[in-house]
Order: sequence, then C-alpha cells, then structure tokens
Amino acid sequence: MVQEAFGHEFRRKHFTLLDPSVILLNHGSFGTTPTCIIEKQNEVSLRHEWYPDYFETFEVEELYRKQIQSLSDYINVDARNMALVTNATTGVNTVIRSIPWNFSEDKVLFHSTAYEACKNTIKFMAEYFGLQYDVVELNYPLDDDEVLSKFEEKLSNKKYRLCMFDMISSMPAVMLPYKDLIKMCQKYDTMSLLDGAHAAGQVSLQFLDELQPDFMTTNLHKWLSVPKACALLYVNKKHHGMIQTLPISWNYSSDSCQPRAQPKTVEDRTHNDNLLHNKFWFIGTCNYSQYLCISEAIRFRKEVCGGEDCIRSYQEKLQKKAISAVIKEFGPGSVLLQNEGNSLVSPGLFNISLRLGDKYKQLEEKLINDFNYFKKMRVLCARLTMERKAYIPFFYHNEKLWVRFSVQIFNEIEDYVIGARIFKDTLIEVYDRELASQPTQEL
Amino acid sequence: MVQEAFGHEFRRKHFTLLDPSVILLNHGSFGTTPTCIIEKQNEVSLRHEWYPDYFETFEVEELYRKQIQSLSDYINVDARNMALVTNATTGVNTVIRSIPWNFSEDKVLFHSTAYEACKNTIKFMAEYFGLQYDVVELNYPLDDDEVLSKFEEKLSNKKYRLCMFDMISSMPAVMLPYKDLIKMCQKYDTMSLLDGAHAAGQVSLQFLDELQPDFMTTNLHKWLSVPKACALLYVNKKHHGMIQTLPISWNYSSDSCQPRAQPKTVEDRTHNDNLLHNKFWFIGTCNYSQYLCISEAIRFRKEVCGGEDCIRSYQEKLQKKAISAVIKEFGPGSVLLQNEGNSLVSPGLFNISLRLGDKYKQLEEKLINDFNYFKKMRVLCARLTMERKAYIPFFYHNEKLWVRFSVQIFNEIEDYVIGARIFKDTLIEVYDRELASQPTQEL
Repeated sequence: MVQEAFGHEFRRKHFTLLDPSVILLNHGSFGTTPTCIIEKQNEVSLRHEWYPDYFETFEVEELYRKQIQSLSDYINVDARNMALVTNATTGVNTVIRSIPWNFSEDKVLFHSTAYEACKNTIKFMAEYFGLQYDVVELNYPLDDDEVLSKFEEKLSNKKYRLCMFDMISSMPAVMLPYKDLIKMCQKYDTMSLLDGAHAAGQVSLQFLDELQPDFMTTNLHKWLSVPKACALLYVNKKHHGMIQTLPISWNYSSDSCQPRAQPKTVEDRTHNDNLLHNKFWFIGTCNYSQYLCISEAIRFRKEVCGGEDCIRSYQEKLQKKAISAVIKEFGPGSVLLQNEGNSLVSPGLFNISLRLGDKYKQLEEKLINDFNYFKKMRVLCARLTMERKAYIPFFYHNEKLWVRFSVQIFNEIEDYVIGARIFKDTLIEVYDRELASQPTQEL
Repeated sequence: MVQEAFGHEFRRKHFTLLDPSVILLNHGSFGTTPTCIIEKQNEVSLRHEWYPDYFETFEVEELYRKQIQSLSDYINVDARNMALVTNATTGVNTVIRSIPWNFSEDKVLFHSTAYEACKNTIKFMAEYFGLQYDVVELNYPLDDDEVLSKFEEKLSNKKYRLCMFDMISSMPAVMLPYKDLIKMCQKYDTMSLLDGAHAAGQVSLQFLDELQPDFMTTNLHKWLSVPKACALLYVNKKHHGMIQTLPISWNYSSDSCQPRAQPKTVEDRTHNDNLLHNKFWFIGTCNYSQYLCISEAIRFRKEVCGGEDCIRSYQEKLQKKAISAVIKEFGPGSVLLQNEGNSLVSPGLFNISLRLGDKYKQLEEKLINDFNYFKKMRVLCARLTMERKAYIPFFYHNEKLWVRFSVQIFNEIEDYVIGARIFKDTLIEVYDRELASQPTQEL
C-alpha cells in the first residue's frame, strides 16, 4: 500500500470538519480529530440511544475492554495496567486523590514548569489537608544532566513520597529525561507520577512495562487522534488495589485501601488482572463515546497514515524546515528552545523566541512580573489571532517571549511562514495599542 | 397552541433514536433523550471541531453561562449558586472531596437506602483518611414522620458535620421529606447535602433559594431531557469559596480554603457572584456538548411538551392506571410501595412488589442474604428481559421483591401490561432454571 501524502491535500480529505480557512498551528492544546473518527463517535452515540439499558449494562464493558486491548497492542503496554480517564489532569487527580496520605508527614515534589491544573491539584491537597510539597525550579534551556541534578538535589534527601514530572511539558514544550527520572525515583524510594499529557502519539510508551514507574497518564485526544476527551492512566500493578476512580462509583472495592501484595494464588492473580478493568469500565452514566473510538483512531493511524514511524518521519522533516522559516519571519535574535544534547524538542512541538525592540522593554517587564496582566494581554492577542485564523500560543519563560508551534500531518511549510507573520504582526499591534493607551510611567 | 398528545405517537415522532421494539419502562436509570436534543448536541460537537482553539477559549464560556441562565429561569433558582457537573455522583464527590475535613473529629450521616456510588464515596473517605460516618437504617414503607424521627435520633446529638440524604431514592424509588430534613440539619448545625439524582424534571426545585440547604445535586439527563450525562450542582453562597471542581483544574483559587464570609463590598460581591462560574465553566479539555443542550431541552419541554405541569399531569394520570395494571399482572400479594401519607411515590417512579410462590422461598432467602448471589441472578434476568426488549429493574428491600417502573410522556398503559407480564415470566423462568440446576440443600 502506498502511503497517502501528508499535508494540505491530506487535511482536505481527512480533516473535513475543520474550518478550511484556519492555519492550524496549535494542535497541541486540544487535538484535531479526523472526520472518520468523529463519524465513529456518532455511531457509538446513536447505539447508546438505541437501548440505553442494554448499552450501559452489557455493551460498554466489552467495548471498553476492546479499546484497552487495541491500545495495548499498539503501544506495547500490558493491558492489565491500563485504564481510561477523561484527560491527563483527571489522571493526575485520580492518582493524587487515591493515595491514603499521611498528611502530617508526606511530601510531594514537582517542577515549576508542570501543568498549572496539576500543580493546583497538589496545592489544593496542601491547602485543604496539609500535604506538603516542594518545587524544582526549571529555567530553560537546560541540559538533561542539569535537570536530573536539580531533581536529585531534592530527591536524595529521601523525604518525598511522590514525585510528579512531565514527559513533555506544555509551556515551554520541552521533553524531560523521564526515563532517568523514573530510575532516580526508584533509587530514592519515591513514587513516580508521569504527566505524559503530550506523550501518546509523539513518543513510544513501551518503556512503561520495562521501567515500571508507579503511575503515568497521557491524553489520547491530543496526539493519538481520539476524540476529545480521553486519556490513558497507567497504574503499576502494585497499586491496582489502592487506586480508585474519580468520582468514586459503584465499583469501589472497600478492601483495597492498602496496596495489594504480589498475587500468590491463581484466584488472587485473576482478581488482580481484572481489578483495574472492574473499577474503571463503569463510573456512572457518562458519555463514553470518545473512549470507544480508540480502535478507530488506531486504524486511522495504521491504515491511512501508515503507522507511527511514517507520522513521525513527516513531522521531523517538516519541523526542521518550519524552525528555519519561523526564525526567518521572527527576525534577529529569535532562537529555537534547545539544549546542547538536542533533547528538548519533541516531534510535534517546538518553541521559538521572539525578540521585540527596546520600545517594548518596559511593557515586557511588566508582562513578565505580573501574571494577571499577562493573562489580559494574552486574551486580547488570542482573540485577534483567532479572528485572523492563525492562533498560536505564546508565553514568557526565563525572561523571554516564546511562541509554541505544533507540527501535524496536515501541516505544510507555508502554514509556518504565514502563521508566524500573522502572529508577530498581531502581537505588535496589540502591544502598540497598549503602549499608546497608557502613560509610560504606568508600565 | 394545542398540546400534542403524549404516548406512543409522541414517541414515534420525538424519540426516533430509540429502538421501536423496546418497551421502555426504565427511563429512570439513564434517561431517554428526544431526537431534536441529540441533533443539537451534534451541532455543538461539530462547532467544537470547526476551530477547537476558538471554541474552548471563547465560545464555551458564554454558552455555558447561557445554559445556567436558561435553567435558572426555568427552575427558579439563583444562577449564581449553580454549576454543571457530569452526573449526581460527581456532584456528591465534588462536595465530599472539597470539604477541608478535620478527619480526627468529623462525622457524616447518611441513610441505608442512599445510592451505592455515593455511599462508597463516604466509605472511601473513611477507609483512606479516617472520616467517620453513621447510617440511618430505612426499611420501607415508612411515614415521613418515621423517617424524620430516625434522622433526628442521630442528628440531635449534634455530632455530625454533614448529612447526605436523597430527595428521591433510586431503589426503592421513594421520596424523602427533604424539606423537613434541610430544616432539621439547620436546627442541629449540620451541613446538608441533597442527592437529587431523580429530582429535576420530577419535582420543583424552587425550595433551594427559600430553604438554602448547603448543597444539592440533580441529574439533568434523567428527567429533564438533557443528553447523557449532565447534572446541576447547587452550592449555598456561603460555600462558593470552599467548593472546588473535580478534577481540580486551571481555575482553582488558592485563597478559598475557608468558607467565604458574606460579601461586604461591591467588589467582593461581584467576585462572589461570579465565583462558581469562574471555577466550573472550564475544567480542562472535555466533551462539553451535553452541557450545552440545556436550553434546547428546556425549549422542548416548554414548546413541545407544554411545560412541566403538562408533563406531570400526564405522568400522574398514567401512573394511576399503570399501578392497577401491574398489580393485576403480578397477581395476589403484590402491592404498591406507599405510606399512609401517600408521600412516597414521585410522578415518574413507582415500585410494586411481586410475591412468588413458596417454591421460591429458600431461593429468595439466599438472594436476600447474599448480595453477590443476587447480583449474579440480576444479570441473568437483565440479559433475558433486555433480549425480550422489556427490561425493568428489580431488587429486594425489607425482605420483599420489588420492581421499579418509570412513567414517561412516551409511555401508554399497554407498556405496563406487556412489560409486567414479560418481566414476571422471565424472572420465574430464571428462578426455575436456578432451582433446577442446584440441589435444594445448596440454596
């Protein structure tokens, strides 16, 4: 079978639900779903309406099991350690709120560039119940060794019960040395929770069964073509007893507060093998339709796209050209966020800095120091770039303005040329308007 | 405008997605959604795919606000105290897991007939973190006074921080004297959490602003025609600061651990008025499509059905005839679950006992005493009744077998005649097979 060419023609054929006038350079935030998979979702929804009693009592469970099995076969991860949740934030919440914490003693570690909603989850546990936490400050660019030594500085005190870290952070979009971090957690007797929000569909997940971290969650709607919103939660088998669904539902099993020992008898093993399935397949009346499209998403990626290697090969080639094109558009002083080991950039995401003139110095200082002010300006800019059909997210990190670009199989090089130009012009327009509206001393 | 006649013709016109051969007598478990509302949901989903960045950043918030406002106008409850969650179990979890419990002191009260998933939530908090709880045993039929005095016996000790109780229980489907229970909780300084899973669309919710309980949650997909799954969470304004979304997300505000005082300044009031909205409108990438169909569901109920009074009037008339018909089909000894004050039965739900012959005495004793055995038999029976397109849920309560019937605007009296007959025949078939398969002494 000859692989169809990726790019705009591919988009016109397979992403027909997308506004054709949009230059889509922010696949990373919400994902973009091929039409055939949304059609499958509609089919499942109609099946649900056909006889809701039958669907919820008998059909969902087997369909759920099949999705887990398809995914297991595709990503090479043991199906018994897999459950489905709504999104990675829900995955993180499921874990953090399933641990029988000793609030007066337990401490959690995470890094400053972790996802806001996940940091908030730990802050909530701290402010409401007294869970303690500590933060590893990460200011990029950083080499993997630097990241690791910053974590080790904390972890080597052996006082952390859990360490949460990203596989690929959101903003800045950078890869962390997650395999080494798993081993480091194991060395220092700390549970590892990997936030792989951007992982599935960008990097291989085969390391899970090999390295056996404690927990990992990854969105399937971002980079694996599943409809919004669906995520995988990987749970190390030693925690199957402890972990509980969010919300707690019908299948909560009351004897599972303490982590289960390794299975000893055949019966126990059978029980253990089905434990995650039994808890997670039904968590009350929900719209399960997006969960039940995983097989179709995998079929699309295998049959239409030619598999993960084909997808990544296209992304990598396009990314190289896109980086040059954006740097050229952004002009002098703009650089790719990368380290010496070239380990920060993932196939689908890269960040380029944008250096504005001295005229904006005071304004940018205020934006860097006042996050609420930045949020206000970000909304203004987002609204205008969306009107111009070329929204791209931006942020300040380590005192620089960075713009995050996504690379997908429907993109072509001209998206980056035009998108970067519209973004830069719009940002300057918004900043100029802001400067004009205020006396300088207010900035 | 002349109101269209309810019944089978109405079903053929407005519930076209439902398998026409199904005798639908279990609307109560999952809800049944009119076609026009599912069509609206598809429209919203397509809008989401058209430009996901724009939809999630700008459109969802205003659409969410409009749904809350429509619902507020329709049910006469202050919009500022309303938030949307996935289902009532999620609503209960949101509350139970947002309270900064003092685990070594706090105690919760609920009743034995509460919904299993909600009881599990409290048991989880007990087993994982040490929250204490106590249970009011309810064995129906009971007069409201009896229910109230059972609660007062416990509550008058003033040792409970929160009391969770149903408005209309699931199985048995009976109404509780929830208004009096709210007042009783207030008298004894206990927070009230109403599980109104079956309330919206069956009973008026106007009491919320008048009696001001602490928390109430009610599914909108069961009896208010909204697609699966969507529920209202009512939060008394004094708890807007404390309550947090499930999962914790972007809009968690860290200064809200302690319940906020009454607003004192204009700024504070404005803040307070938008606080629930600000927290709940966005909890990460989700399928929001069902939430955004509330206005359409209300339009259907107003314009097509003629409003809540018309719906209830049809339900009540049909229910009277249905009760007689089922009792006749079930035969001698079968009764309606009702008390002397006639306060147990809600417009859409009633329970009829089914008395089987002495032949089944030992089998039924085992079913009553061994819940796992009952679950096994229930599945066998459910599968067969669903194959015969006439599933109705049944359960043992207070040593009797009860069957729960729903009454909806698409039902007619013959549904109950045929449905009851198929149910009874199937149950006996399953029980006979079970008796035949086992030596008597094993039962």
